[in-house]
Amino acid sequence: MTEPAPNDPVHESRLALALRELLMRQRVAALGTLGLDGLPFVSMVPFAVTPQLGLLVLHVSGLAAHTGNLQRQALCSLMVMQAEEAGQPVHALPRITLATRAQTLDDGHACYTACRQAYLSRFPEAEPMTTLPDFRFVALQVLGARQVTGFGAARTVQAEELQRALGAHAS
Amino acid sequence: MTEPAPNDPVHESRLALALRELLMRQRVAALGTLGLDGLPFVSMVPFAVTPQLGLLVLHVSGLAAHTGNLQRQALCSLMVMQAEEAGQPVHALPRITLATRAQTLDDGHACYTACRQAYLSRFPEAEPMTTLPDFRFVALQVLGARQVTGFGAARTVQAEELQRALGAHAS
Repeated sequence: MTEPAPNDPVHESRLALALRELLMRQRVAALGTLGLDGLPFVSMVPFAVTPQLGLLVLHVSGLAAHTGNLQRQALCSLMVMQAEEAGQPVHALPRITLATRAQTLDDGHACYTACRQAYLSRFPEAEPMTTLPDFRFVALQVLGARQVTGFGAARTVQAEELQRALGAHAS
Repeated sequence: MTEPAPNDPVHESRLALALRELLMRQRVAALGTLGLDGLPFVSMVPFAVTPQLGLLVLHVSGLAAHTGNLQRQALCSLMVMQAEEAGQPVHALPRITLATRAQTLDDGHACYTACRQAYLSRFPEAEPMTTLPDFRFVALQVLGARQVTGFGAARTVQAEELQRALGAHAS
């Protein structure tokens, strides 16, 4: 795994582009939460992005295991990868694992409206679910990441760089 | 989330079919391991199946974070989902989260040859990587699962039923 020099502007712009492409193209992620048993639990979550706030947004059911897990341990892992295609090789698929902190949003939260709008803009079909009493929006604050852009090409990404990439997503 | 009666043969055969379809069609999974910090870490892994042994097989690099994580805590979570397609809704994508126990295989292990063959049969392009000194095959024993077959349709699956579904995969 190669580690380019910190603050290399060429690598940063490649990262920003690759990250933006992943978050624009892919609508589902693999969420890793800590289970009651102290072990990791991975589940699928549709997600949206609020570029202005630099947050990712989930919409979770109180009946799902990940919801209880996040209430006990808000620090979680979110992996977004380019979807595999039949007949195409998979080992070098671009992907990013984000370390994030989850916060459940009640409708009085300052970020609630922006997060709800971002989610329903991407998933208008989810609007009926927002009327169900056990569903909540969750904002994920990005703390850092590990990005793989190809075979043997991986690097650690700091939160500041991720924030810039997420913000750039707005333009 | 609906929980059909245990040992319901209709649901079992639906599960076996859906599980087989997922494992046949999808070649990558999201692996959740426990990090040094005690938090979950999700990474992408290509995987294969050995129906005769009822195992899943990974091929991991000593440089990857998940490899060190599995050496410290062998119990991990593996999520396989139907790949999203542009323009198609994502909330009800079929997926399964397997609770598994990982074991690194040295070339003297009784399962080594079958696991290597299963992996390289699915990924012949990975053969050059098997000559690299820091790569190892890892067998995942399935302990149980949580399967989602659609919106609001989730259930817990016992290891015995998974073993039957994996075995049925051979025929």
